Amino acid sequence: MQTKYILSEKEMPTRWYNVQADLPSPLPPVLHPITKQPVGPQDLAPLFPMAIIMQEVSTERYIDIPEEVQEIYKLWRPSPLYRAHRLERVLDTPAKIYYKYEGVSPAGSHKPNTAIAQAYYNKQEGVKRISTETGAGQWGSALALACNYFGLELKVYMVKVSYFQKPYRRSLIETWGAKVVPSPSMDTQAGRSILDQTVIGEESMKQMEMAGDYPDVVIGCVGGGSNFGGLVMPFVREMLRNGKKTRLVAVEPEACPTMTRGVDAYDFGDSVGMAPIVKMFTLGHTFTPPGIHAGGLRYHGMSPLISELQRLGLAESRAYHQNPVFDAAVQFARAEGIVPAPESAHAIRAAVDEALVCKQSGESKVILFGLSGHGHFDMGSYDRYFAGELEDYAYPEEKVKEALAHLPEVTPA
Amino acid sequence: MQTKYILSEKEMPTRWYNVQADLPSPLPPVLHPITKQPVGPQDLAPLFPMAIIMQEVSTERYIDIPEEVQEIYKLWRPSPLYRAHRLERVLDTPAKIYYKYEGVSPAGSHKPNTAIAQAYYNKQEGVKRISTETGAGQWGSALALACNYFGLELKVYMVKVSYFQKPYRRSLIETWGAKVVPSPSMDTQAGRSILDQTVIGEESMKQMEMAGDYPDVVIGCVGGGSNFGGLVMPFVREMLRNGKKTRLVAVEPEACPTMTRGVDAYDFGDSVGMAPIVKMFTLGHTFTPPGIHAGGLRYHGMSPLISELQRLGLAESRAYHQNPVFDAAVQFARAEGIVPAPESAHAIRAAVDEALVCKQSGESKVILFGLSGHGHFDMGSYDRYFAGELEDYAYPEEKVKEALAHLPEVTPA
Repeated sequence: MQTKYILSEKEMPTRWYNVQADLPSPLPPVLHPITKQPVGPQDLAPLFPMAIIMQEVSTERYIDIPEEVQEIYKLWRPSPLYRAHRLERVLDTPAKIYYKYEGVSPAGSHKPNTAIAQAYYNKQEGVKRISTETGAGQWGSALALACNYFGLELKVYMVKVSYFQKPYRRSLIETWGAKVVPSPSMDTQAGRSILDQTVIGEESMKQMEMAGDYPDVVIGCVGGGSNFGGLVMPFVREMLRNGKKTRLVAVEPEACPTMTRGVDAYDFGDSVGMAPIVKMFTLGHTFTPPGIHAGGLRYHGMSPLISELQRLGLAESRAYHQNPVFDAAVQFARAEGIVPAPESAHAIRAAVDEALVCKQSGESKVILFGLSGHGHFDMGSYDRYFAGELEDYAYPEEKVKEALAHLPEVTPA
Repeated sequence: MQTKYILSEKEMPTRWYNVQADLPSPLPPVLHPITKQPVGPQDLAPLFPMAIIMQEVSTERYIDIPEEVQEIYKLWRPSPLYRAHRLERVLDTPAKIYYKYEGVSPAGSHKPNTAIAQAYYNKQEGVKRISTETGAGQWGSALALACNYFGLELKVYMVKVSYFQKPYRRSLIETWGAKVVPSPSMDTQAGRSILDQTVIGEESMKQMEMAGDYPDVVIGCVGGGSNFGGLVMPFVREMLRNGKKTRLVAVEPEACPTMTRGVDAYDFGDSVGMAPIVKMFTLGHTFTPPGIHAGGLRYHGMSPLISELQRLGLAESRAYHQNPVFDAAVQFARAEGIVPAPESAHAIRAAVDEALVCKQSGESKVILFGLSGHGHFDMGSYDRYFAGELEDYAYPEEKVKEALAHLPEVTPA
């Protein structure tokens, strides 16, 4: 009975997949935060290296992964895909559950996939110093690892609630040589390219083939959308180009229900109205979600690409409260061993629920979910869960209503 | 350029190797703590399942790994062997450095290799409840994982200094369903079989073959000896049976220098004189080492098998202070990504020093070391290191002298 499906380094993807080549129509334009007019690559040049900007606007189907980036990926990639035999047994379900595990990266999550690429392109353009914002510290630690490899100085502004809730993620960032300062502002999730993360989905595709299955459902948690996008985009390609049928389920916290309760509107990418304006599902850029333990899922908006998937009916979404998410996290840890990050546990909750539906219906569906990271730096959250101290925050309807009153007024072409 | 050497689940060892079959003479007998006479299996029956006792005294060369144990091993085994290309580059050494990484287990160390087997044999004998002691919590978490799989209740007595220094290892134990209580006594390291851990060395042997190299030096950290033994025993077999030549280096903390400064004598296995008396290198069972951050290496004695290797001249030993160990840990984390456990960092320090010797001599030696675990639950130690708060304790000569006065008086046959 095989437990893991492992690819060799030679089978690692050498190209990122760009779903924009296959979408029925181009994404709505990105607008300048002040002029409210569509921006061109030159407008973004002060913010990002040109290579990254060109990727973001590219309609090429594939973009080569630079060799230097591939070499660093090999420190942990290809990542394993597991068949969750023990979880299936515990749930007594006829469903077949698979999970792609990104916690094997040194930073413990999927985020180094894009951080390495971004540090590389910055280095290429002669950048010497970077500063960034991080929520729960996953992004900050990933970029610290990446900047360390390319000899870039890094300063990380860490959202205050996480700075104190997850002190050891801060230590991790410092171990890789970056500086950390607590930040009063929200994380902008700027510049986390879904494109760079498609290695996750491409590997999963090959590994599912090794396992002799194709997923009926693919599930991932969503904050800004990079984890979900990185996993599902290659499956979207198979839907759009080869007529495959797969349900894609994006899972978010009830405390920050961007896709399930947000509006589809133009809004700022950041909380202070300095970042470009994009069309997306949003709770309003001034909305500040409660301090839940899945700190990586506290973003007011959703990536334009994932928003487009929901708009086109290619992806669905659902939201869960903290306690049922941790119930699933502990059930998973006891069945499969791995203690998941609170963010990833949202995907587990949905996968378990899908498997329980199969138990009712007797269907043997194939479920694949993204286990985007481990919870080694989130054990304080587990302590609070076991102590019965986790709040299941009500959907903050009033706060969202207030935030939505501050959407920018735009009249796009 | 290949970074990782990965075996398939089919290539996983199916037998444990027992070096006792190949030693020139049997180990000195184990003595009863009260009668001081050699014990037989029946004397140990109240303490351990018979299957484990029989393994400990067996002179069979190979012992089959039960299928149920193999199935659980597959959750993380075979573990990867890495070529440390980046570390070599940083050190500018002609040496080739490889490391076997056991941090991929759900508990983050090599200890589940034996914990799973021990829980299995206890279950087989109808045991329902186990209690155990743990130092830094590595063993406690490994056994919590194992007992969870076999439906055994577990209570973990965790050495006080670690209970407070590493609170999240406690949370981990609780997540897998065991109870934890702080304990004033020292960890006894009882019942951690080297035999069960030889899967590490057997896999390494195959992986070095994949890499086309054979190690000139094999390095591991030593506390009780299970990590070092698990890695080196198959290489000892090749020395004793096939005339291969490899230096084996056991690395310990200066604060607890069992092999480098201890005496070769009969002593109790535990700190209170209740456990069987064995012939080993020891600092005296009443010796309490200072509260260093490598909590897993704070044991007064050394496994009889590892002691025998040093006695026969098959293994050598060396000791390091905390700060140079953390220097190497951070250098490794920045080169290879993985943040090591303070225990494992002892092996890194020695491997780096061996590689620097090669740099001087121009020799391109092949160095293999055991990276026995990650440091995700030890970040507080890194914080203290960066803050310059780690003490390099002087060798506690007076305290050891005092402890050696309390060795049991025995007159073995």
